[in-house]
Amino acid sequence: MKRLEIIGIEGLGEVKRGDSVARIIIEGCSRLGLSLSADDILVVAHKIVSKAEGRMISLAEVKPSAKASELSRQLGKDASIIEVILKESRRIVRMGGGTIIVETHHGFICANAGVDLSNVGLGQVALLPQDPDRSAREIREQIRQSIGVAPAVIISDSFGRPWRLGTVDVAVGVSGLKPLKDDRGKKDRHGYELRASLAAVADEIASAAELVMGKRDGVPAVLIRGYTAEREEGSARELLRPETEDLFRNF
Amino acid sequence: MKRLEIIGIEGLGEVKRGDSVARIIIEGCSRLGLSLSADDILVVAHKIVSKAEGRMISLAEVKPSAKASELSRQLGKDASIIEVILKESRRIVRMGGGTIIVETHHGFICANAGVDLSNVGLGQVALLPQDPDRSAREIREQIRQSIGVAPAVIISDSFGRPWRLGTVDVAVGVSGLKPLKDDRGKKDRHGYELRASLAAVADEIASAAELVMGKRDGVPAVLIRGYTAEREEGSARELLRPETEDLFRNF
Repeated sequence: MKRLEIIGIEGLGEVKRGDSVARIIIEGCSRLGLSLSADDILVVAHKIVSKAEGRMISLAEVKPSAKASELSRQLGKDASIIEVILKESRRIVRMGGGTIIVETHHGFICANAGVDLSNVGLGQVALLPQDPDRSAREIREQIRQSIGVAPAVIISDSFGRPWRLGTVDVAVGVSGLKPLKDDRGKKDRHGYELRASLAAVADEIASAAELVMGKRDGVPAVLIRGYTAEREEGSARELLRPETEDLFRNF
Repeated sequence: MKRLEIIGIEGLGEVKRGDSVARIIIEGCSRLGLSLSADDILVVAHKIVSKAEGRMISLAEVKPSAKASELSRQLGKDASIIEVILKESRRIVRMGGGTIIVETHHGFICANAGVDLSNVGLGQVALLPQDPDRSAREIREQIRQSIGVAPAVIISDSFGRPWRLGTVDVAVGVSGLKPLKDDRGKKDRHGYELRASLAAVADEIASAAELVMGKRDGVPAVLIRGYTAEREEGSARELLRPETEDLFRNF
């Protein structure tokens, strides 16, 4: 029987700058009696990675530029937050209704450049990790060094979508698995050659993990057990649609 | 420990027009020794629902309109398939690179109006169910009548996304749960009032199920066990972003 388990690694406590996310997860698993294996996948909310890496900003220390102040008036949004969003962005894709959709320096297109005010302390914002793939690789490597096995690691964030309400979690960093499952060119049971069968499994795994994380439940790491992913090294950048193939980037 | 199980209901065989999807799932669960409970969620690939409901078309019987023939030349895509896509659509949102993004009569914005050539037999296409919420309600009601408990039902399809490669499964029909988890207005551990915490849990559940379904694995129904969703009656239409709040609909 094909069966997947999604297990919340609870009780990890507040993560501070300089903490080792790998160690925190290993200890959390140990307390729950979970022994990690190389076939497991760990999904880690970017928030604790950002905290550990010191990717936090006090809004009181931000000096908004003239552009940020102008956008602040247009959007009815705090100028310091906009300043932080602009610093994290390559360009603005679209604005309206109090929302800024940008392309981040990593290449993610998302609201507010992933800058996040929740679960970080009042007056603080969390940025995305500078290089979430590298963060995932480091967590994986530290786990390998510590316990001798290296589960795959996905770093997740909650992204909104055009056309559909609500956020779904996606992978912003990946190590130890291929984020796309490519069945294109293979044949179905009727002999039809599959043309569009490219599944963003890393995003689906991140979404599956969110069901256990929740937004207020304090479960920032989740263990996925039983999923047989392709285990070559991958990158969340593989999930970015090239600009030339994208119908919704330039207007 | 927060723990979710995602179990593939394998061995359901080919579904034909007039078959009862509810009965097929009940028998499939029974063969696997799974007894359904009211707390379970069933995710059903729309493909088997469409087949059971006769939402299939033989391309040989389609007469392309002048418009379909013109688009066929523009896009390098079969004119009969385009004719079917246009019939399923309210309007075209965007075209290019062999892809047509439309708004379906249900209000979904997706490629090809959900018209699908895979796993249906050569020369055939599957449409989305005419009213996938109604299909979900009917499956749920038939299960209730048959075994006395009514798990929630989600009907899923694989949708592409702007900006990110690969498809993720989403909910196109829902019965027995609220598709959005709304934490807006609640406070986080630091007292910050959450503003954007609206999670599309029905879509995340559909994505989680896809990890077990695959595209070529012949697992068109999946049981999700251990997720405590809000169990009021819901509709996949709740997942549609209103046009006035959408930055990527009109150009």
